[in-house]
Amino acid sequence: MSFFNISRRFYSQIVKKSVKIKRMSVEDIKKARAAVPFNREQLESVLRGRFFYAPAFDLYGGVSGLYDYGPPGCAFQNNIIDAWRKHFILEEDMLEVDCTMLTPYEVLKTSGHVDKFSDWMCRDLKTGEIFRADHLVEEVLEARLKGDQEARGLVEDANAAAKDDAEKKKRKKKVKQIKAVKLDDDVVKEYEEILAKIDGYSGPELGELMEKYDIGNPVTGETLESPRAFNLMFETAIGPSGQLKGYLRPETAQGQFLNFNKLLEFNNSKTPFASASIGKSFRNEISPRAGLLRVREFLMAEIEHFVDPLDKSHPKFNEIKDIKLSFLPRDVQEAGSTEPIVKTVGEAVASRMVDNETLGYFIARIYQFLMKIGVDESKLRFRQHMANEMAHYAADCWDGELKTSYGWIECVGCADRSAYDLTVHSKKTKEKLVVRQKLDNPIEVTKWEIDLTKKLFGPKFRKDAPKVESHLLNMSQDDLASKAELLKANGKFTIKVDGVDGEVELDDKLVKIEQRTKVEHVREYVPSVIEPSFGIGRIIYSVFEHSFWNRPEDNARSVLSFPPLVAPTKVLLVPLSNHKDLVPVTTEVAKILRKSQIPFKIDDSGVSIGKRYARNDELGTPFGVTIDFESAKDHSVTLRERDSTKQVRGSVENVIKAIRDITYNGASWEEGTKDLTPFIAQAEAEAETD
Amino acid sequence: MSFFNISRRFYSQIVKKSVKIKRMSVEDIKKARAAVPFNREQLESVLRGRFFYAPAFDLYGGVSGLYDYGPPGCAFQNNIIDAWRKHFILEEDMLEVDCTMLTPYEVLKTSGHVDKFSDWMCRDLKTGEIFRADHLVEEVLEARLKGDQEARGLVEDANAAAKDDAEKKKRKKKVKQIKAVKLDDDVVKEYEEILAKIDGYSGPELGELMEKYDIGNPVTGETLESPRAFNLMFETAIGPSGQLKGYLRPETAQGQFLNFNKLLEFNNSKTPFASASIGKSFRNEISPRAGLLRVREFLMAEIEHFVDPLDKSHPKFNEIKDIKLSFLPRDVQEAGSTEPIVKTVGEAVASRMVDNETLGYFIARIYQFLMKIGVDESKLRFRQHMANEMAHYAADCWDGELKTSYGWIECVGCADRSAYDLTVHSKKTKEKLVVRQKLDNPIEVTKWEIDLTKKLFGPKFRKDAPKVESHLLNMSQDDLASKAELLKANGKFTIKVDGVDGEVELDDKLVKIEQRTKVEHVREYVPSVIEPSFGIGRIIYSVFEHSFWNRPEDNARSVLSFPPLVAPTKVLLVPLSNHKDLVPVTTEVAKILRKSQIPFKIDDSGVSIGKRYARNDELGTPFGVTIDFESAKDHSVTLRERDSTKQVRGSVENVIKAIRDITYNGASWEEGTKDLTPFIAQAEAEAETD
Repeated sequence: MSFFNISRRFYSQIVKKSVKIKRMSVEDIKKARAAVPFNREQLESVLRGRFFYAPAFDLYGGVSGLYDYGPPGCAFQNNIIDAWRKHFILEEDMLEVDCTMLTPYEVLKTSGHVDKFSDWMCRDLKTGEIFRADHLVEEVLEARLKGDQEARGLVEDANAAAKDDAEKKKRKKKVKQIKAVKLDDDVVKEYEEILAKIDGYSGPELGELMEKYDIGNPVTGETLESPRAFNLMFETAIGPSGQLKGYLRPETAQGQFLNFNKLLEFNNSKTPFASASIGKSFRNEISPRAGLLRVREFLMAEIEHFVDPLDKSHPKFNEIKDIKLSFLPRDVQEAGSTEPIVKTVGEAVASRMVDNETLGYFIARIYQFLMKIGVDESKLRFRQHMANEMAHYAADCWDGELKTSYGWIECVGCADRSAYDLTVHSKKTKEKLVVRQKLDNPIEVTKWEIDLTKKLFGPKFRKDAPKVESHLLNMSQDDLASKAELLKANGKFTIKVDGVDGEVELDDKLVKIEQRTKVEHVREYVPSVIEPSFGIGRIIYSVFEHSFWNRPEDNARSVLSFPPLVAPTKVLLVPLSNHKDLVPVTTEVAKILRKSQIPFKIDDSGVSIGKRYARNDELGTPFGVTIDFESAKDHSVTLRERDSTKQVRGSVENVIKAIRDITYNGASWEEGTKDLTPFIAQAEAEAETD
Repeated sequence: MSFFNISRRFYSQIVKKSVKIKRMSVEDIKKARAAVPFNREQLESVLRGRFFYAPAFDLYGGVSGLYDYGPPGCAFQNNIIDAWRKHFILEEDMLEVDCTMLTPYEVLKTSGHVDKFSDWMCRDLKTGEIFRADHLVEEVLEARLKGDQEARGLVEDANAAAKDDAEKKKRKKKVKQIKAVKLDDDVVKEYEEILAKIDGYSGPELGELMEKYDIGNPVTGETLESPRAFNLMFETAIGPSGQLKGYLRPETAQGQFLNFNKLLEFNNSKTPFASASIGKSFRNEISPRAGLLRVREFLMAEIEHFVDPLDKSHPKFNEIKDIKLSFLPRDVQEAGSTEPIVKTVGEAVASRMVDNETLGYFIARIYQFLMKIGVDESKLRFRQHMANEMAHYAADCWDGELKTSYGWIECVGCADRSAYDLTVHSKKTKEKLVVRQKLDNPIEVTKWEIDLTKKLFGPKFRKDAPKVESHLLNMSQDDLASKAELLKANGKFTIKVDGVDGEVELDDKLVKIEQRTKVEHVREYVPSVIEPSFGIGRIIYSVFEHSFWNRPEDNARSVLSFPPLVAPTKVLLVPLSNHKDLVPVTTEVAKILRKSQIPFKIDDSGVSIGKRYARNDELGTPFGVTIDFESAKDHSVTLRERDSTKQVRGSVENVIKAIRDITYNGASWEEGTKDLTPFIAQAEAEAETD
């Protein structure tokens, strides 16, 4: 009956035909990987079939934008996090914190997220459908251009072309039917210009475009509501009274900023220093698609490096300055090109293409990390944000983008948030968030200062007195200068004070404003923040694509060539057969592997070795250890490498040493196995074909 | 100026006096720890001062029940998670998954959380205050008993006693003023009985108690609203339309249950197997207090072990059966005792005190884990839940409770959820969630079966036909039996079908219900779930308490005696002075430590070695490596042990080997340092006093 043979059925899905798999050199593998075009459906089928991930709540029909990681996906994610922690937190001595996801309204209002972290949506009041405004304008104009091309005879079937396009972007097509209508040349040009700038429009601008070009519901033609900002944060209420409004954090950064003073003290007040945090963040996407690339709940790893705005040099810059990278700076993009500039980080900083050493240092360290975990170097570029696409807090930003079948995807942001966040939180809470630097040479500083004649404040302002005083004491230098002028000219000035009705008038009896020169021994400054921010899920998906290929001998036989360091499982332990003589030695090897803390799985399912290996190639398991009848006698085992299918033989101890050296100590296959004997057994070679 | 001396000020808080610290044996340490009573304020001051944790959003006044972990707390948490993952997931070959926290309404409605995961609250309609009903009844009755005691002359000052009590429980006192009023002896007895059962009352029962004993707002005396269920889940809306209601998960378990079929297939359909998940869960406490013990967002580590309900034996039971534990079973508690029964797990299972081997196995593994991470064995007990305190899904439950200054705290639950969750989800989604077991000996099974005359269903029920059919095909055996009887007696029966108005009548033309005997080759069953569930934050706090003590020579000098395995930082690297000759060797040792991936910190702050060590004793750093002028010559260094302050000396390589053996390979201090030389340098001994 079919029930029992699940494992057989399972295997038979992989290896349908008997094809002999050849041993391959690194060159062979490269060729093989280049030969067959990448097939996303096949990758997804492997990833879901092997339970790397699955749509969350599948049993209940699923919820778009939510995914669960199964055992191999979860192990892969853990290994990437572990590598990240070692690469950044341990090597760079960062201060890791774990802050709450629940965040009160007040904090995110101050940070700007309540007002600005949103997309524009328009609702069809008749059908209740909701469209993301920029996506809608983009699709409708693209469809019209396609229709124009068909009318001009440049495209045979505009609808088919649009379908291809939608599939590439994995979007549900909103425009169901394209009509072949020729447009004026001027209109074509206008449409193309709009599409080039589509990421930069504000909501009202999108609304104007929709009106001007008559863009409505693409199916019914019905006019839509004007674009409304839809805040992308998930809202909730904290506590039973429902009065404390909160959100799920959109980034881990705010928790780090709010703990700035404690972190600085923990670091013995030394600067520069960095904090780091790894955790889930949330984004209530309007209509998420594109699989793991656009999700509503995602793992981030974020660094906030606090640095003197006047000195952004980095002590370890020399260590990375010769690394060559592909840069796509703003001016190249503005000139309409996507051709990257390849230069060293040292050159990029020297030419000020990249603003400073610290930014350059992190860009290089991001590159090193991505290489470590299996990103294809030729599919990585660093693109500078255009002025109109930067987040509200960013002064500059370079994205580490990875090329996938969905196009170039932003996977790591490296933003200069300047002093934005610390400044706004400090202003709101009236707590200083500053670094104090002892000056070797005291300096003279001339500043506007205000003196209050406090005893007059109570009688004059009564209950408002504290508010007025606080307002005056927190005025900026510019403000003080202009008020001083008014005071000089008119003997009085007026201000608006939060929480006090009307204008407040102050005269020279109440306040005195003077410029004074003082010797300062301490410089007090709000540090700049350089923020490398990693979208772990996007990186994981990109590594899936970059690692996936098919054996040239059999296109149905797929391999995920993960670096051993991050592979979910390191070793597949396979007894050649179910014979009882192999059980003791298998148990013993398993015990040694467990004691060595090398993650492994035993497959004693009894199907052919070739089938068992094929399955584990799909799981990305880099090593196979085969136990045969020789093993039972002399404790020697065979070690198989996943990509080349090469095999070597040696004692259990030496094989485990090789596995450890290659996996954790950075040895190559050749270096790691130099003391082991090349091995081609007839039985085994046959096995791979069955 | 005071700014510059932050690090000095920082140190001076720790070591105010010059006290000579003595070398201590393990016995000495035990005595020292027992001698000074535990002082919670002092522990908290160390934990906050060293930024193990801090109230989240402190800068904004804080939000109760939300805490952030600073660098040492975060590292400690990571190490505990790492130990957990190795102890459970790797050693037991569990399938780890990472599921989303956002969970749609439907799932939690089915699991029972929407209806049952709540506390009872009462509102004062005048003041808007909200009280948790059980806490209110408890406090008011306790206050009246205290007042009675004062009236009887048994207590001098009832208000002072109540204040002490409130502080012990870290609750804000709701009853502000206790009156010395004598109660009838009967009433005293009634109150005491109610207090003994306070955790078991339902909302309506609490309401009755409040009415009967005239319990209102303790300050104003005002009558309160009757207790209302307040659901403890955080609610949110998924997507822009707001139509998909969701919650933040209250446990990680549901995600694991929903993926059951995929996990079973991943495991090649072999049972028993376990899944596991580590992640944040949420609980919107009515008014959280008790610091890290009752929080609104917390890290859980949960295992769902799926096992045949007819065979709950465990293959590795023998390995743990001789472990002796303290058990507090239900019957002992019912007899009013809290005296635990100490016996081996083997005896506990043999006597059926613990129901089965799998439950016993996990209880023992929980014990082993807790010992590994620093729980005090004498402060651990396993308490069986009383029938009225079990969660709605549990068939049996043993809590691993840790004794703290707040009393015995539930830190690990080990529940038998039976087939509850898989059954309800299966019923709701109509997807089978079962294990299929091939029977070696086919068995005859007699079952009720129903046949539908489908061609009559369409004409008779029209659009409702599918609903009626589905209802009939999903009827239970009991249901079928009773309907068969009705059919036999009356030739018809009626049913209520979800989504169909009125009653549906069926006769023997439409359906046939018969008992049939068949030979089955497969047994199909819903597995039972044994669920060890760890509240990581509570465990962390308990280990803080269990590890904390003060040096007998100076009560202001605190130590956190974490096991090296989980200590946030393993090594403090201290150059004896700031002399330039020590810089190269310090840098070199740092490089070796970094390469060995042993987490360490350098303290070259220039204050005395004693002060530097005192600070790190508070951080729980188990080892100090001192670099002196000898080191610069011969590369030997001194290794100091935190608790005993013993020192040994050897080459850098040997010292690092000792650190590694003690930290990661389970060696004791004596075993690890047997090749190193005992060391008492005059300069160094002095240093600890300064």
